[in-house]
Amino acid sequence: MQALVKTAAAPGMERREVPVPEIGPTDVLVAVETASVCGTDLHIYHWDEWAQARIKPPYIPGHEFCGTVAAVGAVVQGVAVGDVVSAEMHVACGHCLQCRSGQAHVCRFVKILGVDADGAFADYVKIPASNVWKLDPAIPREWGSLFDPFGNAVHTVLSGEIAGRTVAVTGCGPIGLFAIAVAKACGAAAVFAVEPNAQRRALAMTMGANAAFDSAGDVEAQVMAATGGNGVDVLLEMSGHPAAIRQGFRLLRMGGRASLLGIPARAVELDLANAVIFKGATVHGINGRKMYETWYQAEALLREGGIDLGPVITHRLPLTKFDEAMKLLESGEASKILLTVSKE
Amino acid sequence: MQALVKTAAAPGMERREVPVPEIGPTDVLVAVETASVCGTDLHIYHWDEWAQARIKPPYIPGHEFCGTVAAVGAVVQGVAVGDVVSAEMHVACGHCLQCRSGQAHVCRFVKILGVDADGAFADYVKIPASNVWKLDPAIPREWGSLFDPFGNAVHTVLSGEIAGRTVAVTGCGPIGLFAIAVAKACGAAAVFAVEPNAQRRALAMTMGANAAFDSAGDVEAQVMAATGGNGVDVLLEMSGHPAAIRQGFRLLRMGGRASLLGIPARAVELDLANAVIFKGATVHGINGRKMYETWYQAEALLREGGIDLGPVITHRLPLTKFDEAMKLLESGEASKILLTVSKE
Amino acid sequence: MQALVKTAAAPGMERREVPVPEIGPTDVLVAVETASVCGTDLHIYHWDEWAQARIKPPYIPGHEFCGTVAAVGAVVQGVAVGDVVSAEMHVACGHCLQCRSGQAHVCRFVKILGVDADGAFADYVKIPASNVWKLDPAIPREWGSLFDPFGNAVHTVLSGEIAGRTVAVTGCGPIGLFAIAVAKACGAAAVFAVEPNAQRRALAMTMGANAAFDSAGDVEAQVMAATGGNGVDVLLEMSGHPAAIRQGFRLLRMGGRASLLGIPARAVELDLANAVIFKGATVHGINGRKMYETWYQAEALLREGGIDLGPVITHRLPLTKFDEAMKLLESGEASKILLTVSKE
Amino acid sequence: MQALVKTAAAPGMERREVPVPEIGPTDVLVAVETASVCGTDLHIYHWDEWAQARIKPPYIPGHEFCGTVAAVGAVVQGVAVGDVVSAEMHVACGHCLQCRSGQAHVCRFVKILGVDADGAFADYVKIPASNVWKLDPAIPREWGSLFDPFGNAVHTVLSGEIAGRTVAVTGCGPIGLFAIAVAKACGAAAVFAVEPNAQRRALAMTMGANAAFDSAGDVEAQVMAATGGNGVDVLLEMSGHPAAIRQGFRLLRMGGRASLLGIPARAVELDLANAVIFKGATVHGINGRKMYETWYQAEALLREGGIDLGPVITHRLPLTKFDEAMKLLESGEASKILLTVSKE
Repeated sequence: MQALVKTAAAPGMERREVPVPEIGPTDVLVAVETASVCGTDLHIYHWDEWAQARIKPPYIPGHEFCGTVAAVGAVVQGVAVGDVVSAEMHVACGHCLQCRSGQAHVCRFVKILGVDADGAFADYVKIPASNVWKLDPAIPREWGSLFDPFGNAVHTVLSGEIAGRTVAVTGCGPIGLFAIAVAKACGAAAVFAVEPNAQRRALAMTMGANAAFDSAGDVEAQVMAATGGNGVDVLLEMSGHPAAIRQGFRLLRMGGRASLLGIPARAVELDLANAVIFKGATVHGINGRKMYETWYQAEALLREGGIDLGPVITHRLPLTKFDEAMKLLESGEASKILLTVSKE
Repeated sequence: MQALVKTAAAPGMERREVPVPEIGPTDVLVAVETASVCGTDLHIYHWDEWAQARIKPPYIPGHEFCGTVAAVGAVVQGVAVGDVVSAEMHVACGHCLQCRSGQAHVCRFVKILGVDADGAFADYVKIPASNVWKLDPAIPREWGSLFDPFGNAVHTVLSGEIAGRTVAVTGCGPIGLFAIAVAKACGAAAVFAVEPNAQRRALAMTMGANAAFDSAGDVEAQVMAATGGNGVDVLLEMSGHPAAIRQGFRLLRMGGRASLLGIPARAVELDLANAVIFKGATVHGINGRKMYETWYQAEALLREGGIDLGPVITHRLPLTKFDEAMKLLESGEASKILLTVSKE
Repeated sequence: MQALVKTAAAPGMERREVPVPEIGPTDVLVAVETASVCGTDLHIYHWDEWAQARIKPPYIPGHEFCGTVAAVGAVVQGVAVGDVVSAEMHVACGHCLQCRSGQAHVCRFVKILGVDADGAFADYVKIPASNVWKLDPAIPREWGSLFDPFGNAVHTVLSGEIAGRTVAVTGCGPIGLFAIAVAKACGAAAVFAVEPNAQRRALAMTMGANAAFDSAGDVEAQVMAATGGNGVDVLLEMSGHPAAIRQGFRLLRMGGRASLLGIPARAVELDLANAVIFKGATVHGINGRKMYETWYQAEALLREGGIDLGPVITHRLPLTKFDEAMKLLESGEASKILLTVSKE
Repeated sequence: MQALVKTAAAPGMERREVPVPEIGPTDVLVAVETASVCGTDLHIYHWDEWAQARIKPPYIPGHEFCGTVAAVGAVVQGVAVGDVVSAEMHVACGHCLQCRSGQAHVCRFVKILGVDADGAFADYVKIPASNVWKLDPAIPREWGSLFDPFGNAVHTVLSGEIAGRTVAVTGCGPIGLFAIAVAKACGAAAVFAVEPNAQRRALAMTMGANAAFDSAGDVEAQVMAATGGNGVDVLLEMSGHPAAIRQGFRLLRMGGRASLLGIPARAVELDLANAVIFKGATVHGINGRKMYETWYQAEALLREGGIDLGPVITHRLPLTKFDEAMKLLESGEASKILLTVSKE
């Protein structure tokens, strides 16, 4: 089959002919139709510090996708050839304290397909059957490739109360944009986007934000004015930038909730006393998606919540044009890029 | 002033001239504009068993209203003459365990204005300043008289998780109808109304229900079919009818949440083993509104949630026509009736 | 091997020679050392209505046990021959909504070993490896057979806040007695036992109750006096008797929490309005134990919490004397009876 | 009366004759018996940066005390002359969002008596009646002066689940020591103290810690060994030292809970990605005590939980020896110092 391979401990990826994966008795083989590109893929492509520490080439990246089941292992139940599916690519160990007490999303021994093992930038991908998610036909098919990042957003928004709450979203990459739509669909009182890129601020408004502020402006004054001087009830931190994180906490009201998804590249200097402690704030670190509670919620919201993921999908390219995709992503022009796999 | 007075321990109410209430240093006097009629008022009007046990005539009923502040007590801060307001009519004692630990809505010594003391079916009503709620001008003014029952609905819906959840609402009186709209505005996956009255089922659909089932039909089969055989995640019981309560619990999935607001007139025979215990269900008894968390949520949802209370308001009458209002309510023709107070 | 077999759809059980179970690749075979007798076993023995509806003879009952691993299936990891173990006998399906969202203890398709399939009243029992719980050597070995009912108690007590709370325990069978000790070990402010049997009230005091009231007395007055007129913060209902359930709810304060574990034999007439709704109570139906969060908690409490299960174990008998055990249990003389399996 | 007065914007305090406070209609005057010294008082005494920014001399410090009610205002109910009391010295505004939604402990406009207004290092102190806490006679009288810091500990420990959980306490000042005892009384599986001062480590063991590690040692290896490689379920950060905070987060397991009470003097460099985000941790900022839920819990735990505060009280001095008290505190020799007020 054709696959995009991280061949060596160096920048770049290569399109190559590789064998179709062999599946075990509890696995499923999926013919990939659409794979979407995540910021993580860009780190791997560029071979940055994080990638150098984590990635073991050669392997196939890609962890956001949808496709059709092509084969199922001997003891697989509930998934059949022809099913249209996406998948949770965090493969939990099943045996640790976390896995055995309802926290599989923070499994101590998790392996991520597309990061720690072969992923979905290929004609076929092998997945444990229990990680497969069958797609509801009422949801546009290509959105199936977005369940992973959309699930990140759902997990972040719903990690605390949201109905009737004011919200700040710092960082309007795809997951931040999804979070805006999710918060609104779940009854948020008002959502304020904070983002330096004007194009992304425009997308934030499209996705339902009540206002989109330029991070470089006096965001604190604007948000305080909009919340009667209180600050927001909920901070959704989606950028990972130290300055945005600090700014976000300044927007948070006494007793508020901050859910942190964006991943800072290095240690962050944070005024814990004023940002968290005196404030009596609750802070949630967000990793992945709850397995599989978030998937049920995500499906329901996409089917019934009136959410349109369309505006976030700025580009569709064939998988062969991955170099172009990486450049678009890097430039800040693109939000979500879908790569189409065609098997001719 | 003119007031509707429950003059004696007997059916009926009378319109009478009474003195304007004198306010103390921490009170506010409100000129009532609109008062809405609650099922409780009908019980008081008819002087049923419950009313005979609770009500001490003569007094002025009415606990759902909006109006304009006409005077404020000597030490009142934050409320001024001319403010357009509604009010929480549950006056909590402030000293009991519940009041001192964030549960004032279940104060052991609560007094309800309009039930235990003079209420709002009058030209003026006296309210402790801390119970006053200033109305957001972005919300239609007459909806101010609906904050009490709308708040009941908000408290019921938000007493547990709702986003991405399937919901059954048993009983589509005004609070049930409000609950449908609130659940949808807060991201419910699907809302199934269950109600014997066809007119109310039609209103349920108007308020956003995904389906409205006749209680007399095979509701269980219909809901199971719509939920993949699971039953609903959430039951909102708004009827108080024993058969509806039992039916509601049969619709609830294993591990689901039931919030009970409807008040049964007498003890209910319930299969606790199957309805609650084996099911691992969580049941919330709902009394009033959280003071004042629910009010903030209700305001936000009315301002931003795209909820239209209009369809539930089936009649508007002058306060003088209270006998007609009681008849309309009793007949089942009316949903919410607003009584207009005019002081000429 | 020797086993106690429910041979027919009629009262009684029989000791018989049967084949040792054959294990599959993911199973474990355990040589049973101690099995304890549960009220459920008595229902099965007597072949009451519930048993007639649920049980399919012939099969081997028994779901509370400890023993030593005698063999492990081909793909089993983390459990080895010689391990001293107990097991969660609720075998969850792994595929339903509940199993996939952290509620496996209320799996829609659960099968209980010892109820729906062969159990532990035998020389050997077959268990799925993932249901096995390795026993901490710091805990007395025979207590291993009590993890199931002790876990019920832990799940009931910890289904809500307990530290600093006043508690009523209605029903002092073994699980009620365990619950008293757990509540005290977890910082309960005071635990009031309510129980008609004087011997059980004495055991309640031994397990740490602050007071043990005769259900036939004026329990309400006594509990109200002891709680400043409030009632208790937490009701742990362990009896399943309608009168005790109603009494328990009368003891519960406004805004309190009731966790119901005892299983009523038929529908219960309950004043929902006053017991639950006006009270703003939270009611938890308790089924089994959380898989496997409760097991971690139970182990920690037995190892570190200073809890002595000894007083609840009133009898130890060889498995051959099961008829005597059933009689003792029925008489109310016994609390927990351990049956010893010896293989000569 | 005699009082300790912060007379000027400079180091030190002075004992002076000042007028007895005049109380308003809702106030209570308390004759102070015992006041205890908090680290905050030391900051004020030394006139450090924080004190310079916050404190407005002249005023009377002291916010931990017990005493006897000497007079009550005209409209005060429920508190009488002669009552033995302590008090919550955070005076909440009662009008802000936080105060009106059950979060008065993070009131936006809070004033702390003894910090922002006259406090308890005096013969008499004036308190709003609603802030008074009547002491249970079953609790040693002088412990009444410790409800404030003991309540901090209770609030920290009980801000999440604790029963059956493993715990690390970083920093064994008085509140850290209290937290150890509270965690054990509430069923913690094991409590590991981490503290550089050997004398405090000894106190930690006296208060019930399972082990007390020197912060300078390889704490991470020791805690990982003691928790099967997981790390602890719960981190209680009581030091405010950046290195201890970072160390504490390294001890926390995936999916764990960190409650932060210790106040860093300046911004802290923290590896948010690994400490919080990937870990899926929940972090609670802890400010004061819940009003007044924590007070009920604290009273119950002191009355029934078998907790002995005695070992933490290392010194008792007359209020006149405040300079000596400050020196003792500064030296690290003292844990909690009680100052006795005698009025002859």
